[in-house]
Amino acid sequence: MLRIAGVQFIGHADRAVNLASAERMVREAAARGARIACLPELFNTMYFCVETKPEYFDWAEPVPGPTTERMGALAGELGIVLIAPVFEKAPDGRYFNTAAVLGPDGGFIGKYRKSSIPFMDASRSPEPRGNEKYYFTPGDLGFPTFDTPFARIGILICYDRHFPEAARVLGLGGAEILFVPTATTRMTRYLWDVELRAHAIANAYYVCGVNKVGVDVGGSKRDHHGNSMIVSPKGEVLAEASATADDIALADVDLSALPALRSLWGYYRDRRPDKYGPVVDLPSGTVHPASATQLAGTR
Amino acid sequence: MLRIAGVQFIGHADRAVNLASAERMVREAAARGARIACLPELFNTMYFCVETKPEYFDWAEPVPGPTTERMGALAGELGIVLIAPVFEKAPDGRYFNTAAVLGPDGGFIGKYRKSSIPFMDASRSPEPRGNEKYYFTPGDLGFPTFDTPFARIGILICYDRHFPEAARVLGLGGAEILFVPTATTRMTRYLWDVELRAHAIANAYYVCGVNKVGVDVGGSKRDHHGNSMIVSPKGEVLAEASATADDIALADVDLSALPALRSLWGYYRDRRPDKYGPVVDLPSGTVHPASATQLAGTR
Repeated sequence: MLRIAGVQFIGHADRAVNLASAERMVREAAARGARIACLPELFNTMYFCVETKPEYFDWAEPVPGPTTERMGALAGELGIVLIAPVFEKAPDGRYFNTAAVLGPDGGFIGKYRKSSIPFMDASRSPEPRGNEKYYFTPGDLGFPTFDTPFARIGILICYDRHFPEAARVLGLGGAEILFVPTATTRMTRYLWDVELRAHAIANAYYVCGVNKVGVDVGGSKRDHHGNSMIVSPKGEVLAEASATADDIALADVDLSALPALRSLWGYYRDRRPDKYGPVVDLPSGTVHPASATQLAGTR
Repeated sequence: MLRIAGVQFIGHADRAVNLASAERMVREAAARGARIACLPELFNTMYFCVETKPEYFDWAEPVPGPTTERMGALAGELGIVLIAPVFEKAPDGRYFNTAAVLGPDGGFIGKYRKSSIPFMDASRSPEPRGNEKYYFTPGDLGFPTFDTPFARIGILICYDRHFPEAARVLGLGGAEILFVPTATTRMTRYLWDVELRAHAIANAYYVCGVNKVGVDVGGSKRDHHGNSMIVSPKGEVLAEASATADDIALADVDLSALPALRSLWGYYRDRRPDKYGPVVDLPSGTVHPASATQLAGTR
């Protein structure tokens, strides 16, 4: 059995406070036995996207860079895999909403860049929404899986979780655990369980959703609902964190059960890729398995 | 508002009894105002796939054919759209698990053939399972939507519902309501709500799941859980039928709300078809939107 953790804490306008909160909570997760821990979306800043201010671009940083190096050192000290989502400034001048994967040797394993970027007109919402399209270029890395020492993992960031194709690509890539660092609010609380559970069931992997919690100190009134959650491949909620406070969702997952589950259910065996063409803007029937290239994974 | 119905009834080894039950229940649904009604998977037979007997192939029939003509006459008399799932024998000698769509003028609108065909080893199940691979060729029609006089609809049959790509292709094709005729058992009851609700949310359409109920009289001990269900695009359960008896799930749906919902949420706008290549067995990034052909639908 492998113990994993979704670590949530109340954010702060002062980035140093977030770093300290994250470090304290990750140490606690490791002390309680977690071997993989995930922080929320944009963990070291408040959720700044409710405003469109050029000065917030100054908070972006290279990945790898200072913050991921500090988190890598922490992962190395604790001997864990740590997922650290930050605001990335790429060398070519673009900005991404990124998650870095740091290994138990302190090294940089890889990164994922949020693929689908939301923007909901604030006038249509009863609570502050994010104009993320102002800040983030849609990710250009596809949906990689990361073969860490403890599990093969995939990452979707917040809004990405509304796209079942994205969750499926990670399953096809052999993901055993999907981590979903998030910064979402009470308005969409009703979607949280059902989407995470559905991804887990359809793809026969574990899902760990990690949400921000509460109102950022010194930030907007946007109220994040917490409820970081670990779900089994049968859609069972194994752990759920507080709706209002710093907390850790912690559960033991059994990766050895996944191959038999995939074999029993056949949800990979009985797919019809030859008929899913419209998912990639091709007519149904034009994509033939005979043209398939080999994919990584455990189908 | 449009009233729709999922019609469930206890099956029988005598096909004439099923036809009579279906006709009685569809008349009741229409009398209660339903303009579209859907019957369960393989509505006019018992669920015979728990056995592998060559003589059951005699129950297959052309589509259109005698049963769909009779159901078409009923739809015409009642002025409704009727979805009638039957065991199809194709002219070329193949057999399909098919659903016919019959119009309010009594005409044959089209058909869908179940795309993903299950087979669970009975020795691994505490209850009778179906070896559907013995009977049914995987459907060759893709995932069509049907532009009926009351709504554009899509159909997935039973096991198909475990495949989020299939549900998405129907959304891309402009489906406003997804009907899911089914014959599933209490063992998988825990999946029913979460999968139907997740499809509704991700694709911003209504979902009407229609399950067989109870044990077929004169058939196997396989116990179908009923609970035919209508779900809103927000994942709300609008209606749920009995777990044990003949019943109708009946609800009013507001198709006029769908375009604004799709616009508000952006789940179609912010998709990344260029990164979903693995869903159709292509590497991520090889399918470029510039090569896209125009799809039907309301993206």
